[in-house]
Amino acid sequence: MNLILLFNEDFIEGASRVRLQGRRLRHVLEVHRAAVGDELCVGLSGDKIGIGKIVLLNQEALEMDVLLDRTPPVALPVTLVLALPRPKVLRRVLRSISALGVKRIILLNCSRVEKSFWQSPFLAPEAVQEQLVLGLEQARDTVLPVVSLRPLFKPFVEDELPALIKGTLPLVAHPNASAECPRNVNEPMTLVIGPEGGFIPYEVDKLVNAGFSAFHLGERILPVETAVPALLARLF
Amino acid sequence: MNLILLFNEDFIEGASRVRLQGRRLRHVLEVHRAAVGDELCVGLSGDKIGIGKIVLLNQEALEMDVLLDRTPPVALPVTLVLALPRPKVLRRVLRSISALGVKRIILLNCSRVEKSFWQSPFLAPEAVQEQLVLGLEQARDTVLPVVSLRPLFKPFVEDELPALIKGTLPLVAHPNASAECPRNVNEPMTLVIGPEGGFIPYEVDKLVNAGFSAFHLGERILPVETAVPALLARLF
Repeated sequence: MNLILLFNEDFIEGASRVRLQGRRLRHVLEVHRAAVGDELCVGLSGDKIGIGKIVLLNQEALEMDVLLDRTPPVALPVTLVLALPRPKVLRRVLRSISALGVKRIILLNCSRVEKSFWQSPFLAPEAVQEQLVLGLEQARDTVLPVVSLRPLFKPFVEDELPALIKGTLPLVAHPNASAECPRNVNEPMTLVIGPEGGFIPYEVDKLVNAGFSAFHLGERILPVETAVPALLARLF
Repeated sequence: MNLILLFNEDFIEGASRVRLQGRRLRHVLEVHRAAVGDELCVGLSGDKIGIGKIVLLNQEALEMDVLLDRTPPVALPVTLVLALPRPKVLRRVLRSISALGVKRIILLNCSRVEKSFWQSPFLAPEAVQEQLVLGLEQARDTVLPVVSLRPLFKPFVEDELPALIKGTLPLVAHPNASAECPRNVNEPMTLVIGPEGGFIPYEVDKLVNAGFSAFHLGERILPVETAVPALLARLF
């Protein structure tokens, strides 16, 4: 936790004093091993980052006086459409995507996504938010990504994608594509990443018909948690 | 498992028939759900890749006739020197590095690596190899990376690094560096990646004195399992 993410409900006595319990308190006690007087990096959800000076710390609570004076890191100008990964991987991928600075994530169904993945408790809003917060705390960011679920491929591609990709470069990462992954693309993008087994031809065709260009990332088939940071680092 | 990695001891009756049991048999039964006559992607450790045609498959064993006729994907020309991550992360990072095509990995101690990490059972050679094999099987590669452990920072940097970096571009990823991460560097490289808390100034100085240039990957502090693919994808 390189930044402690604060929410409006953490504030007591006006605009600068926060009181924390639970996970964040335990982390400060056990990992930071901080003491009264220490200064920690903090940030307000959706807002600025700054410093929290510890004024009280015991097994019950952590209180800090905070000064928020810096803007969070710039977001990546990308909407990431990701075939829903299996639940264990999903948690890590959400954390990683959040740390990388993606702010719009759409989890999509397709032929090679197992139906059971959609029943995972890790897709519950609070479980998703937990991972997103961990990613922000790691990367020292404050702006929570928005995650949407799209359990139907065809209506999403036909009815939603055309509006979504307006003003963006629509790209799909696909192992069998002939074009190489572009580098250092400094423009807004809609990036679609398929499941570990790849999209089926029908799905790639639908995306290409919707205006997407397909590219590959080399001969190696990377696990999704490796492919996502690799793709974003090369594209941006 | 996009490729089944074979070893010399798997071969029976000469050069083309293999007999597998254990993990690989179970995977073919339960995940591939293959049958006699099916063809699977296989590769011989350190050698070519090709096709294995199933000639026998039951709960006891899998036998295939294999034809190995293609070279594995090209390796990344990098020696990766990585501050030893915590054990749980180490396993995933080894798998990811192996999938990305790195062939020389040095796990290094430094000030912010906890001493207990060096006692982890995940550092045992067979545990390391297990993850490396999983990475190769994912990426369809056959060449196992060589992993070395260096539990002493100073003697490694002073006595070993000078010879190691000869003929390579020596780079260290460091959050406080002023230079940005170079892109698309097509030359042999020695890449040093610090621990999640970063190198201490003494350590960065030692590396810079040894000839390394420091660069950063942006404002965000990425978890090591996200930073490694991001760095490699941008550098190569």
